[in-house]
Amino acid sequence: MRQLRMGMVGGGQGAFIGAVHRMAARLDGEIELVAGALSSTPEKARASGQALGLANTRNYGTWQEMLDGELALPPGERIDFVSVVTPNHMHYPVAKAFAEAGIHVISDKPLVHTSEQARDLMETARRSGIVFAVTYNYTGYPMVREARHLVQSGALGEIRKVIVEYNQGWLATRLEEGGNKQADWRTDPTRSGIAGAVGDIGSHAENLAATVTGLELDALCADLTTFVPGRALDDDGNMLLRFTNGARGLLWCSQIEVGAENDLRLRVFGTRGSLSWRQEEPNALEVQTLDGPLQVLRRGNAYLSPAAQAATRLPSGHPEAFIEAFANIYRGAAEAIRARLEHREPDPLIADFPTLEDGARGVHFIEKAVESAHSEQKWTAARWRASVPEVAERGEAEQAPPP
Amino acid sequence: MRQLRMGMVGGGQGAFIGAVHRMAARLDGEIELVAGALSSTPEKARASGQALGLANTRNYGTWQEMLDGELALPPGERIDFVSVVTPNHMHYPVAKAFAEAGIHVISDKPLVHTSEQARDLMETARRSGIVFAVTYNYTGYPMVREARHLVQSGALGEIRKVIVEYNQGWLATRLEEGGNKQADWRTDPTRSGIAGAVGDIGSHAENLAATVTGLELDALCADLTTFVPGRALDDDGNMLLRFTNGARGLLWCSQIEVGAENDLRLRVFGTRGSLSWRQEEPNALEVQTLDGPLQVLRRGNAYLSPAAQAATRLPSGHPEAFIEAFANIYRGAAEAIRARLEHREPDPLIADFPTLEDGARGVHFIEKAVESAHSEQKWTAARWRASVPEVAERGEAEQAPPP
Amino acid sequence: MRQLRMGMVGGGQGAFIGAVHRMAARLDGEIELVAGALSSTPEKARASGQALGLANTRNYGTWQEMLDGELALPPGERIDFVSVVTPNHMHYPVAKAFAEAGIHVISDKPLVHTSEQARDLMETARRSGIVFAVTYNYTGYPMVREARHLVQSGALGEIRKVIVEYNQGWLATRLEEGGNKQADWRTDPTRSGIAGAVGDIGSHAENLAATVTGLELDALCADLTTFVPGRALDDDGNMLLRFTNGARGLLWCSQIEVGAENDLRLRVFGTRGSLSWRQEEPNALEVQTLDGPLQVLRRGNAYLSPAAQAATRLPSGHPEAFIEAFANIYRGAAEAIRARLEHREPDPLIADFPTLEDGARGVHFIEKAVESAHSEQKWTAARWRASVPEVAERGEAEQAPPP
Amino acid sequence: MRQLRMGMVGGGQGAFIGAVHRMAARLDGEIELVAGALSSTPEKARASGQALGLANTRNYGTWQEMLDGELALPPGERIDFVSVVTPNHMHYPVAKAFAEAGIHVISDKPLVHTSEQARDLMETARRSGIVFAVTYNYTGYPMVREARHLVQSGALGEIRKVIVEYNQGWLATRLEEGGNKQADWRTDPTRSGIAGAVGDIGSHAENLAATVTGLELDALCADLTTFVPGRALDDDGNMLLRFTNGARGLLWCSQIEVGAENDLRLRVFGTRGSLSWRQEEPNALEVQTLDGPLQVLRRGNAYLSPAAQAATRLPSGHPEAFIEAFANIYRGAAEAIRARLEHREPDPLIADFPTLEDGARGVHFIEKAVESAHSEQKWTAARWRASVPEVAERGEAEQAPPP
Repeated sequence: MRQLRMGMVGGGQGAFIGAVHRMAARLDGEIELVAGALSSTPEKARASGQALGLANTRNYGTWQEMLDGELALPPGERIDFVSVVTPNHMHYPVAKAFAEAGIHVISDKPLVHTSEQARDLMETARRSGIVFAVTYNYTGYPMVREARHLVQSGALGEIRKVIVEYNQGWLATRLEEGGNKQADWRTDPTRSGIAGAVGDIGSHAENLAATVTGLELDALCADLTTFVPGRALDDDGNMLLRFTNGARGLLWCSQIEVGAENDLRLRVFGTRGSLSWRQEEPNALEVQTLDGPLQVLRRGNAYLSPAAQAATRLPSGHPEAFIEAFANIYRGAAEAIRARLEHREPDPLIADFPTLEDGARGVHFIEKAVESAHSEQKWTAARWRASVPEVAERGEAEQAPPP
Repeated sequence: MRQLRMGMVGGGQGAFIGAVHRMAARLDGEIELVAGALSSTPEKARASGQALGLANTRNYGTWQEMLDGELALPPGERIDFVSVVTPNHMHYPVAKAFAEAGIHVISDKPLVHTSEQARDLMETARRSGIVFAVTYNYTGYPMVREARHLVQSGALGEIRKVIVEYNQGWLATRLEEGGNKQADWRTDPTRSGIAGAVGDIGSHAENLAATVTGLELDALCADLTTFVPGRALDDDGNMLLRFTNGARGLLWCSQIEVGAENDLRLRVFGTRGSLSWRQEEPNALEVQTLDGPLQVLRRGNAYLSPAAQAATRLPSGHPEAFIEAFANIYRGAAEAIRARLEHREPDPLIADFPTLEDGARGVHFIEKAVESAHSEQKWTAARWRASVPEVAERGEAEQAPPP
Repeated sequence: MRQLRMGMVGGGQGAFIGAVHRMAARLDGEIELVAGALSSTPEKARASGQALGLANTRNYGTWQEMLDGELALPPGERIDFVSVVTPNHMHYPVAKAFAEAGIHVISDKPLVHTSEQARDLMETARRSGIVFAVTYNYTGYPMVREARHLVQSGALGEIRKVIVEYNQGWLATRLEEGGNKQADWRTDPTRSGIAGAVGDIGSHAENLAATVTGLELDALCADLTTFVPGRALDDDGNMLLRFTNGARGLLWCSQIEVGAENDLRLRVFGTRGSLSWRQEEPNALEVQTLDGPLQVLRRGNAYLSPAAQAATRLPSGHPEAFIEAFANIYRGAAEAIRARLEHREPDPLIADFPTLEDGARGVHFIEKAVESAHSEQKWTAARWRASVPEVAERGEAEQAPPP
Repeated sequence: MRQLRMGMVGGGQGAFIGAVHRMAARLDGEIELVAGALSSTPEKARASGQALGLANTRNYGTWQEMLDGELALPPGERIDFVSVVTPNHMHYPVAKAFAEAGIHVISDKPLVHTSEQARDLMETARRSGIVFAVTYNYTGYPMVREARHLVQSGALGEIRKVIVEYNQGWLATRLEEGGNKQADWRTDPTRSGIAGAVGDIGSHAENLAATVTGLELDALCADLTTFVPGRALDDDGNMLLRFTNGARGLLWCSQIEVGAENDLRLRVFGTRGSLSWRQEEPNALEVQTLDGPLQVLRRGNAYLSPAAQAATRLPSGHPEAFIEAFANIYRGAAEAIRARLEHREPDPLIADFPTLEDGARGVHFIEKAVESAHSEQKWTAARWRASVPEVAERGEAEQAPPP
């Protein structure tokens, strides 16, 4: 099995998430980094590529040069896919250009700045027939997949309530003034988009809840706040949720909760059972039923679903964590890309990753949260499928009762 | 030191909370139960009293008989205070009558059904000069008092965010149909009042947050739901909160979260630090600052505040729990009553208990939550002090800057 | 039901455990303190009794006066039992004298200083026909009773390994020099006995393991150390254990483990399952089987055994703790005493408390641990039943296969 | 920076730990696998190498062929180091041969079967001047390095007590009969060596305790047991420890503790403070001092030591786990090898890995544990330095008081 060839846009020196993408891509030995345009500053891009050992001919100064350069190579040498790990505002133009050229895409989240851009990318990807993954990396955790399995299997009954929270505290002070690159672009609307915490981490919370429960949002009621003086975007967002099946929810995200590190949690309650998961202790999943004791399911055990087992590399008790979960997204997209190359169906247990639809729904969520924050009405309609005709059709088919 | 003489209304056979009140009253050996009207059914009242060893002459069939009977005794034999542990609808008439007769009152929560009743009780109590405690028992935990101390001391800085949650699951099915006495009255509007979960446990959440933070609610936005078919009152309530100092919050209470037992939790985030507490593991309090590691403060240690130390009976590591916290409310009210009897000031570290104002504010909170649930407007104004002239005045005085 | 009349020896001002015994006795309203000789110093004894509201006529200066005084009362007024809460060296003479007078006894642990004293007490108690309870209070926890039930029911299979640990840190410095009364007598051989940590808390560990597993010790290998300079007794003890069924074990107790509060833990592993319990979070019991996920059983749930349910006062999620567990020992002994008074069999679910045999076995354990510590041989034989002829007989009968 | 070239012996299809070594080597992009003799069966070795994409010319059938083949290559193409991941019995011959050829070695643990072999390897490595790392991978965790730092810095005072435990349950039944490859060789003395659980995981426990505390073992007292019928080696081992500074300890390892996964824990108590760490939740380190609250230090925070910070790749709250810790050993050895290649001193914060001395001391520990298990004497002398003349000299120098 040859390694897939990856090109990367963004992720140069001083960036955080680019290195994570590279470790995730590298972990399973199925992907190699062969090209890059690693910074928006050409000099910095090239210096970054050199440090990573990129060949000079494929260590590009800009993403446009990379696109041209790669297309000029014979297909057997060209990159198989591009990984887009820039600040948010560059996701759209880069992904669009590579998608149009028929190059598969793995993009960081939030996908783009507007639903219009998202719909355009969906249309482009469909025309090109490419694989497009969005790195909502938390869904790569084995126990998140177990949680999704439990909901799908009906073990919890009908879902009544969802509580999803994403607690951070790193922006409790004005870190962006001290030269922190991560804080800098995240608090800048021209690069981050219309939302701060809601876009950066609220969208992860939305995706986690949607992935596990399969529920569609009906309406939301948001209170977004900017606590740190001088900041342009929200650094705290609290929401009430209503789902189309009648379930209720709470979602919040904050970057000013002093002491919170990267505390993403999900609780789901159904008529017959419930589950609870925390990203900071990702190898465990708590499950409760109406009558029995608390069960703590742990990664790597034979009692787990095939989906959870397929997402794990180590025996139980040998903890896996953030990088391994992130690598599952890469491995999933790689399997889908390989299946295209080999004209076969992908293995559904492996090719399990957030798609362009997840990305588009996430953008819609951010827009609706901001809209609600400015509204005096309690509820802001937030159905996404209805806003994307062909998805809506599919969605209805999915939800149709068995004949 | 003689034991205070307690009379009890409610809490007969089949009741839950009455027995807890009696254990709490008894724990420190400072209070003895000498009279009771323990059920609304005279036969059952008497049988209950007999089982508890009440003297026949003070084992009353009704609370009115008890009031008359006690007043007929010489002051030196008469009950010092009455403990009202009936279902909610009886709190008002009973407390009112005893208060008018000058007998101190300890009442269960929520105080009464309406703010009008609450104001009337406040007026009555003021006229009579009695001590009136409301058993928001969770504020009796030593680590809750430590939490309050940390906020008051400024250790957390200015409070920005409050998350308070009360998760239960025992009403996830229609338990009230199976003859469960607790479920029965709590789901019956004529006895429980206008709210279900919000009244029963949401009011505890409100009180806990208010006690620890000292913040006043400005407005709230509530989504109340009745999930279990056939039930008349909410069994789940989710709210966004705004406080008068600009802080934001989330409060929820649910009785349909399968697997949750009695999971009351509070998180408070300030500009400089944060704290987190869980009722089910009450001996610990987590504290974080901007820069240091997580600290876990534990009950019974010398590094705690005098308020926390005064509320504890055992050395660290010898856990205290629900009954001990409840007993702290009784001990606190008893100290206040004793101070009246002895014409002295009470010891403020001991006489630390929720008052009629807590009770009245709780009723107001329930009313506003229900009002908001029926409103299409996002925010429902919820300031309580403004609605109670003399409290408002006092409140302003309290908040006035030092001269 | 009349309250049982309790007399107390020890537990005056400045003592710790006496107040705990009184709260435990008082909690259920079934016992009243009517007499006391609360200190070895008559003046202090009387002052202590006065503070507790004892009648002058029964507020004795010495335990001998109390014994005489009570025996002089008509049986219907006399104390039903004596509670012995003195430092260790007084347990034997006091318990012996009251037992000989036919007065039931509840004694703190360790029972006495020597196995000879223990055998004498067993003989005395048998002759007098009294109830004799020893307050190994940790066995009063509902989840300890559930643990015992799980072993007895065979849910864990044959027991292979036992790990019991009692971690404390309060004596990590020379606290006894600073006037700490608890530290003072515990580190004094004339009052504490031949062992320090092993006697004070190691004996609790032994009792917990024996109560839950029902296993008998075959041999032990102990390493006892005195870490704090100037101290006469061990403040740390580590042991390997072998049980008569072939199981292996580790037991340790320490009072110099800085930061440890009162951290008693038990783990039991069998061929089919295992359990784990921690005193500092006593409402939970972790259980694992060969193939399934971790289960966390919690106090107050319907899935628990009758023994665990009988030992609980509050619904699940309303935590119970140290005092409630201690009160279960008192309630158990009280039930046994009442049954004697009423000429009936006690309810075995209630009359569940550590007996004189537990106390005697604990003394034997301490002796063997100290013997081993001085031995160069690895194993010191530690069977207790064999050393007590009639217990040995009974033990064999208990262990006999069903016909 | 070019990637170091790694050859691997062992780790073919069906093996567990080989794949972990490869992920660990790959994670940071600094090492590439270029050659292998991946199984003791040549066909299987080649099939395994093919699946991993090894070039045919360097996909060897045996490790001897690999050694010859690599030595025949020009130095600029030859492997820089060999990774030995076979069952235990092959560690010695393979490591010895490559070491003699001047090729650096990373070997799995336990190092070899006998102290004689260990001393021979030490001598060989010294003569060849190679880097030799032993994958006691748990010392690669950032919080283990923080723990070591805390001890070294004196924050805990003089160490008095060490508790190290390694709990597993996977061999509670006779798994080796069902074709489990891992269980098979580990329970076979010809491949595993003289010890079972003690060699496999007890040696990890020894290394963890020694690494963190720096203490040298003086004597031990071991009780080793084989619980599962038909098994030739111990599956459970319990020990008392004495250290040369007077500290005491407990060490146990078990593979029959049903439900335990890979539960390695360390507690260290000094005169001024203590620490506690668990491998299954590796991002946290609990620290206590004489007077303050429990502190929970978490990976990725600025308050940690340089050693802990150098061992981390992700911000706090983004958990790292087993593979990342393992990768730290590879990164450390790689830094040491690179420094040799570049004729410079290695960066001590990076080149932080267990050495041949750790490996040799581990073998000595296993021998002494087994010796003690067969002894009727309580204490078996277990000083290692004294048994290795030149280490002893160095050790004395290290422990010499400052001039």
